Amino acid sequence: MEKLKQLIRSEGIVISDQILKVDSFLNHQIDPVLMYEIGETFASMYRDQGITKILTIESSGIAPAIMTGLVLKVPVVFARKQAPTTLGQAFFQSEIFSYTKKKTVPLMVSTRFLTSQDVVLIVDDFLANGEAARGMVDLVKQAGSTLAGLGIVIEKSFQLGGKMLRNKGLRVDSLVRIESLENGEILFHDEE
Amino acid sequence: MEKLKQLIRSEGIVISDQILKVDSFLNHQIDPVLMYEIGETFASMYRDQGITKILTIESSGIAPAIMTGLVLKVPVVFARKQAPTTLGQAFFQSEIFSYTKKKTVPLMVSTRFLTSQDVVLIVDDFLANGEAARGMVDLVKQAGSTLAGLGIVIEKSFQLGGKMLRNKGLRVDSLVRIESLENGEILFHDEE
Repeated sequence: MEKLKQLIRSEGIVISDQILKVDSFLNHQIDPVLMYEIGETFASMYRDQGITKILTIESSGIAPAIMTGLVLKVPVVFARKQAPTTLGQAFFQSEIFSYTKKKTVPLMVSTRFLTSQDVVLIVDDFLANGEAARGMVDLVKQAGSTLAGLGIVIEKSFQLGGKMLRNKGLRVDSLVRIESLENGEILFHDEE
Repeated sequence: MEKLKQLIRSEGIVISDQILKVDSFLNHQIDPVLMYEIGETFASMYRDQGITKILTIESSGIAPAIMTGLVLKVPVVFARKQAPTTLGQAFFQSEIFSYTKKKTVPLMVSTRFLTSQDVVLIVDDFLANGEAARGMVDLVKQAGSTLAGLGIVIEKSFQLGGKMLRNKGLRVDSLVRIESLENGEILFHDEE
């Protein structure tokens, strides 16, 4: 997705050889028109897959997920990292390692919103070590839903998440793949 | 907003006389088409106010906020309750009491995304005691931005947040106002 790549080039800040900061348009300040275009792109990729539900994780996954849901006209469910007072007793739960919090955190979805009838597209803003994705795939499995694939806005392909998911035979569509952040430079996958 | 009221009537669950569960379309599973209509409604209310930015708070505020931003074609900023590794050192910070966590939590926005040039519309899913709203109003004030008003999806008007904000002279537009949840019944403001 060329527009996204240009934005990453012009506004992305390399914090370290592991961390790219794109908080001016993706995960703190958000560009809603870009998010809609991202939603259109994921929707076109999965248009014929009979998707009934989009699954994402709070917080930064919500914007691209909701736009994908808007275009496909299907509900969006976001997995919770912390149980709200209204969650109730019946939920699927997985555990993922949070690199921000440096500890294992739970990931929860009410059993009312993922069922064996659902065909699920997972959408998230980043794919790095794949912990969030692994947790969401696990929730889909627990629910007995069919997983159509994962739509990722930015994959850091020098980390192992994408490889882990593809090795499981899962479909992963990343709009942009970053090969390296070494020496403060952003190297895209197709520029090797 | 009649459609929203009907959804609350048909799908809302009264957990207690303080808590209404609307997690099938607003804050766990989300109906993106409804969110778009909510965005159109807020956008039409503030169309002539010169809004340059939407401010919300993670996580459930993001969906209605991003749709409002999409219709008005302005960026959306969501305040963080937990500092991500990419936040940096320069941010506005307020403190709010979280009724879910039963403790005071911080609320942060990077100084890059709220400035004295901004005219801000705050959007959130619920207004109850007004803690989140008060924190966001404080962030807008710290930034020297102009606050145009607050767009709220559901106001529980038997709690004090709406009164507190209006007493400060702030413009508050709630799509639905709930007067009471007593005896397991949802009483809307215009049904008194």
